[in-house]
Amino acid sequence: MKLLNSLPEIDAASAALAIRNAIVIETDDMFTLSGFAGIDFQTKSISEGPFAKHAHDSIDAFEYILQSIDLSLDHVVKVRCFLQEPVRDFPEWNAIFKERFRAPYPCRTTVGSPLVVGLIEVEMTVARTARRDAEAFATIGA
Amino acid sequence: MKLLNSLPEIDAASAALAIRNAIVIETDDMFTLSGFAGIDFQTKSISEGPFAKHAHDSIDAFEYILQSIDLSLDHVVKVRCFLQEPVRDFPEWNAIFKERFRAPYPCRTTVGSPLVVGLIEVEMTVARTARRDAEAFATIGA
Amino acid sequence: MKLLNSLPEIDAASAALAIRNAIVIETDDMFTLSGFAGIDFQTKSISEGPFAKHAHDSIDAFEYILQSIDLSLDHVVKVRCFLQEPVRDFPEWNAIFKERFRAPYPCRTTVGSPLVVGLIEVEMTVARTARRDAEAFATIGA
Repeated sequence: MKLLNSLPEIDAASAALAIRNAIVIETDDMFTLSGFAGIDFQTKSISEGPFAKHAHDSIDAFEYILQSIDLSLDHVVKVRCFLQEPVRDFPEWNAIFKERFRAPYPCRTTVGSPLVVGLIEVEMTVARTARRDAEAFATIGA
Repeated sequence: MKLLNSLPEIDAASAALAIRNAIVIETDDMFTLSGFAGIDFQTKSISEGPFAKHAHDSIDAFEYILQSIDLSLDHVVKVRCFLQEPVRDFPEWNAIFKERFRAPYPCRTTVGSPLVVGLIEVEMTVARTARRDAEAFATIGA
Repeated sequence: MKLLNSLPEIDAASAALAIRNAIVIETDDMFTLSGFAGIDFQTKSISEGPFAKHAHDSIDAFEYILQSIDLSLDHVVKVRCFLQEPVRDFPEWNAIFKERFRAPYPCRTTVGSPLVVGLIEVEMTVARTARRDAEAFATIGA
């Protein structure tokens, strides 16, 4: 098991919210991460402005975290997204997801949620293997 | 790692919603899946009608996906359910869960969510081992 | 795989809600658990009273479950929390989280949800290794 609980661009925003979670915990070859709202790295606080700003900032935070441990968005297995305004923002979230990830895409779930802060909260589960290196399943009767 | 991102009965509904997620990603002996609302395989779109139709259609989608990779609902470790109308629909969801799964049952969490579409969104995590082949824990002081 | 679906302090509350989920399923060295609202072990029913009572009762249930299989809150990798009143109750949840867990803390996600019952629903994913025994990541460019 490996544990990461401090990264410069994350620590300021976490301190402002009095949060002391781990950022990443590795067990075997899987990586569990805390969820992240959009964090504006300029202001070190929760993103403001339109939905796209929140969504990109949240994905930026994950990209920064993953790069810091020598991984990338290509290693993401599952994305779980909670939207403050699910009906309004799903089409834009869907477009941003396809823009920020590369095929083959990860698994995903998107639901709505009355969030603590901001317009989006994202969770990711990550593997050591990149998705493009995955084998195809031999499907039966499909 | 294995990755599955196309299955006939899923692709039409995904295309209608412009979704390009993976359906299943296998890492070691665990299977991560995308979440699914109820999908009506006749109309290739999101289920309509009463809650039971949505719930059965969602479980049917998982059953179809799992059978296509030679697994079944017996291999499900965790079910996470998001209900559009949690107080109204929980008793029926609970009954459908017990009808569709066999003992020993999987772990489960059920919460409410203002969904993007439909009355239910379900996530499942799956293992290569069937639950009936699980050993019992040796519990301490319980 | 090991599966636990009965524990004295959990069974009465589950029976009252007609729930028959597994409590814990172990796959390799990871433990998947069902989600739990606050359960009052005195009344064997869902907690009543202020938020702190619900939150402590839910964490007590996990602590009891984990102790019964010779683990503890120190082995928790991820906590996912759904709050009925996310804006109102997040600061107190955050304080209770820091009181009940020990550093290094687990990963965490907190969102709001219109719950089936009570003021909180908590999920935990658990590993066989204690967090204090985790190695540090060698971070790059962070």
